[in-house]
Amino acid sequence: MLTLAFESSAKAASVALCDGENLIAQTTQNCGLTHSVTLLPMAEALLKNTGYKLSDVELFAVAHGPGSFTGIRIGVSAVKGLAWGAEKAAVGVSTLEAMAYNGLAFGECAVLCCVMDARRGQVYNALFEVRGGKPCRISDDRPIALAELAQEVIALNRPVYLIGDGWAVTEKYFCEAGIPYTVAPDPIRLQNAYGVAMAASTKQPGTADDVLPVYLRLSQAERERLERMNKE
Amino acid sequence: MLTLAFESSAKAASVALCDGENLIAQTTQNCGLTHSVTLLPMAEALLKNTGYKLSDVELFAVAHGPGSFTGIRIGVSAVKGLAWGAEKAAVGVSTLEAMAYNGLAFGECAVLCCVMDARRGQVYNALFEVRGGKPCRISDDRPIALAELAQEVIALNRPVYLIGDGWAVTEKYFCEAGIPYTVAPDPIRLQNAYGVAMAASTKQPGTADDVLPVYLRLSQAERERLERMNKE
Repeated sequence: MLTLAFESSAKAASVALCDGENLIAQTTQNCGLTHSVTLLPMAEALLKNTGYKLSDVELFAVAHGPGSFTGIRIGVSAVKGLAWGAEKAAVGVSTLEAMAYNGLAFGECAVLCCVMDARRGQVYNALFEVRGGKPCRISDDRPIALAELAQEVIALNRPVYLIGDGWAVTEKYFCEAGIPYTVAPDPIRLQNAYGVAMAASTKQPGTADDVLPVYLRLSQAERERLERMNKE
Repeated sequence: MLTLAFESSAKAASVALCDGENLIAQTTQNCGLTHSVTLLPMAEALLKNTGYKLSDVELFAVAHGPGSFTGIRIGVSAVKGLAWGAEKAAVGVSTLEAMAYNGLAFGECAVLCCVMDARRGQVYNALFEVRGGKPCRISDDRPIALAELAQEVIALNRPVYLIGDGWAVTEKYFCEAGIPYTVAPDPIRLQNAYGVAMAASTKQPGTADDVLPVYLRLSQAERERLERMNKE
């Protein structure tokens, strides 16, 4: 199934074209430009340079979160629009599950600690291990305090690999707490759209209607409104 | 140093923009279109979508071989033209050394077996190990018979990881010979331009004149001509 996959859940943006598990092309950038400007032109250039047309695409896939609220909205909106307009299948996948595909190289002993900076001493995280060449979940996606994540990782007593844009804040905490870890090297440190396509290949595709953002936490505005309402 | 790097030594084509060791953007495709059509448009799209201009680039880097004679000539010619036209620095790096940067995830016990299919029972190969987060050479670049490579790998008695487009032919041989190995998973299985930029960052940059193809073997036409001349 020819899949066009989008990743825009953090600062980096990535688009990939896959035929099943076969990566045909991928373009990734981490230059700080807003995804609302870069994401669709990246997809357009990728299709043009590989000789494919938008109408060839059978499935549109997107990392639906967790991550940057604005980034997720841009990716999800793009995929909803493309799938709705072309009446094609669409699927949203966990940002954290998608980035676990970067960690297959670390082998079956490894714990893949997928992390995105959620601010306020927290990360969005899920833990995975590699079984049969695929990532398998050890935990659900969750916002978690770094202190709590550290306790879980210590209890597992296995080599831990940090993947995703939350690596820096997690490394800092683990380093200060004396917890051993390895940061995934470039070019598999940050999330990419190839992982989104791979995670999507394990899901039942739906329609544009089924793709929704998954924030895991209330936005700052919603949180503050709730606090005001509770006080009143 | 802002580096624009090119990889076109096999079927896949890749262009990366790096600032020192920092990957700003990369685009890679493996769709079978000829590099003479795709490579420069890929670079153009990458620069346009990241907000950089060609005149911002300070160093042009290319995988100068070994690999496909035509692929290498296209990449080397592109970089010579760009560097000569803009009077900027240029550097050529070993295709095999560049792809070793894909293998950093495998850790310090690993032997990185970088391979490209050289036909006639041979591969272009170099062996590396990871030290201090960088690839270090165990062997020079060479065309080598798979039987001979197998003997070297057995003698090393360490976990072996296959990287590069020669993985399939090498896997087949190792499998039949009962030699343990692991094929690097996508998206770090095939060579990419990020590795070219990283290898280039360890070299002294020159000018367009200094970038030359490194084939390691005579072309088929040259070989047959030599055989004819020896017979005469």
